[in-house]
Amino acid sequence: MLLKGRIAIETLPEPEPQAGQVLAAPLACGVCGSDLHARDHAPHLCDLLHRAGFKGFMDPDLPVVMGHEYCAELLEPSGDLPRGQRVVCQPFLVDDRGLVLVGYSNRYHGAFAERMVLPQDTLLAVPDHVPTDIAALTEPLAVAVHAVNQAGVDGDCAFAIYGCGPVGLFVIARLRALGLGPILAIDPVPARRAMAETMGADAAIAPDTEASAAWWRTQNLHTGLSDTMAAVGVSKRAVIFECVGKPGMLTAVAEAAPVASTIVVAGVCMESDAIEPALLIQKSLQLRFVFAYSAQEFRAAFDMLVADPARLAPMVTGSVPIAGIDAAFAALTASGDQIKMMVKPS
Amino acid sequence: MLLKGRIAIETLPEPEPQAGQVLAAPLACGVCGSDLHARDHAPHLCDLLHRAGFKGFMDPDLPVVMGHEYCAELLEPSGDLPRGQRVVCQPFLVDDRGLVLVGYSNRYHGAFAERMVLPQDTLLAVPDHVPTDIAALTEPLAVAVHAVNQAGVDGDCAFAIYGCGPVGLFVIARLRALGLGPILAIDPVPARRAMAETMGADAAIAPDTEASAAWWRTQNLHTGLSDTMAAVGVSKRAVIFECVGKPGMLTAVAEAAPVASTIVVAGVCMESDAIEPALLIQKSLQLRFVFAYSAQEFRAAFDMLVADPARLAPMVTGSVPIAGIDAAFAALTASGDQIKMMVKPS
Repeated sequence: MLLKGRIAIETLPEPEPQAGQVLAAPLACGVCGSDLHARDHAPHLCDLLHRAGFKGFMDPDLPVVMGHEYCAELLEPSGDLPRGQRVVCQPFLVDDRGLVLVGYSNRYHGAFAERMVLPQDTLLAVPDHVPTDIAALTEPLAVAVHAVNQAGVDGDCAFAIYGCGPVGLFVIARLRALGLGPILAIDPVPARRAMAETMGADAAIAPDTEASAAWWRTQNLHTGLSDTMAAVGVSKRAVIFECVGKPGMLTAVAEAAPVASTIVVAGVCMESDAIEPALLIQKSLQLRFVFAYSAQEFRAAFDMLVADPARLAPMVTGSVPIAGIDAAFAALTASGDQIKMMVKPS
Repeated sequence: MLLKGRIAIETLPEPEPQAGQVLAAPLACGVCGSDLHARDHAPHLCDLLHRAGFKGFMDPDLPVVMGHEYCAELLEPSGDLPRGQRVVCQPFLVDDRGLVLVGYSNRYHGAFAERMVLPQDTLLAVPDHVPTDIAALTEPLAVAVHAVNQAGVDGDCAFAIYGCGPVGLFVIARLRALGLGPILAIDPVPARRAMAETMGADAAIAPDTEASAAWWRTQNLHTGLSDTMAAVGVSKRAVIFECVGKPGMLTAVAEAAPVASTIVVAGVCMESDAIEPALLIQKSLQLRFVFAYSAQEFRAAFDMLVADPARLAPMVTGSVPIAGIDAAFAALTASGDQIKMMVKPS
């Protein structure tokens, strides 16, 4: 569990399912970038969620069992589902105090634990041909499904993805699964660029404004104000996913973006960041800040994995038992070659 | 004319129409906020336009005759239009060096002059029942038409407008002409709040986060993260127009915005501004930076004025002869009760 910025392995009482809930054993749970944020910046994260209107988020001064990207095994039957069934579900519970974000609650365990309770009404049964680690990718893939939906994409777009961590890579995989492209991936780490190509990027480059501008020039897009004003019939447009989340990225992306780009901001920058509104106005840019997903989008991610479980298998680059969680956090913070690490509680 | 931040009245050679152009006498031309920017910050404005990919913008070290919100009288026939016909048109000319923004060009006069040339192929004839001052509102109204179009509005939206200068007021008028609402207007100046109500706002308040939050609560919108995640069927959404353009506004607007708001940024903030990306992500906000308009949007603005010229008449709060242009700039910079001032060159 996490308490005041430190992770500790503790023995806790077994959770007791309430009405509408079922006891389960987490089999695998991915470590999310938000988990790293929460370890290092819990008070700030909590303040943000409260200001965003969500009162049910964890109290950073109380212990929390994290883990929200899980595949679990039912320890008792639930509706038509037998004991032993592997399931995934959105990490949300509703009780008499409102909505709970599982993994960021002081009242319910997340999946970095041997036991947790799940909501009975949103369980999705994992078919036998889908490996447990792949099923556990449903939640982060749902984030990418939502990001792509929010961009309002179609066959007349060209795409650039800044940052090839899990979010950026899932976005690439999602675009490709929808038959969309071309896709340019941008990341300073060679292993991540290689993974971007594995996921379906047409090109992967280190950050370089000139190189990305050259790529855009091959895409027959708007190239300046003249086009915006004069050429109504130009249909191809640039869609950019900002999946880095560090200060300065928005300005760098806006500066390099073609006129009239849609910029989907999925990288969570916790610090204040400066932008130049007049430049964004002159370029008619859109910034769409995206968070979470709907139930339909979670289901769409699940369906994509079930249809082709092998597609995303390369994303799982490591796994640890629950005692190794601190080491997994450290490996991911170092942001080298690790992409998605699985914790195996059971 | 404007040269290095100073406005001077000069005698210049009469412009000579080239192929596809016609000589005209400006009758009335509104002073735009961009003109005030250009007087005070021309090098910065030029740098922005160049970075946005528009190479044809004025050189700030050379003289420029401004004025792009005009109604003019033809001094010679043009196609079916007789000499003496009043016309409006988009302030764009195309010649062998590319697109020209009339009013921000060193090679063509804007409408703060006794003579100018107009493009023959985009002229709109002003019907007799439309006063000249009202016809001259077509261009700034087109900016509002575009801003509203970019918001993707429909009958299931509720609207807040920050800043009741011309852009905000035209947005209010446009929304109302489309039968949309409810509309909350926010401005510190009482005269501007009164004008917002004249243009159709349902309520007009001074900036006050609590008061605007109270208004949103009456609109049956998303109110927090719980709704975003759980309630797919919530259809009413918040659309906000930021028409102030000063540092700090984006943060203030984002802080007060309901979850999942669309924020259209039409106020041109020339300085760098800080935002808090993580908060915008948690609230799933969109920032759509808007600039100019298409030919169809210019036409839609014209049609709206022709259909009901009296609707926007209160917006014209003063007029000056060409010798009074410096005084008009000063009155508008003071940002008191003046909304749209007309310069009458002829």
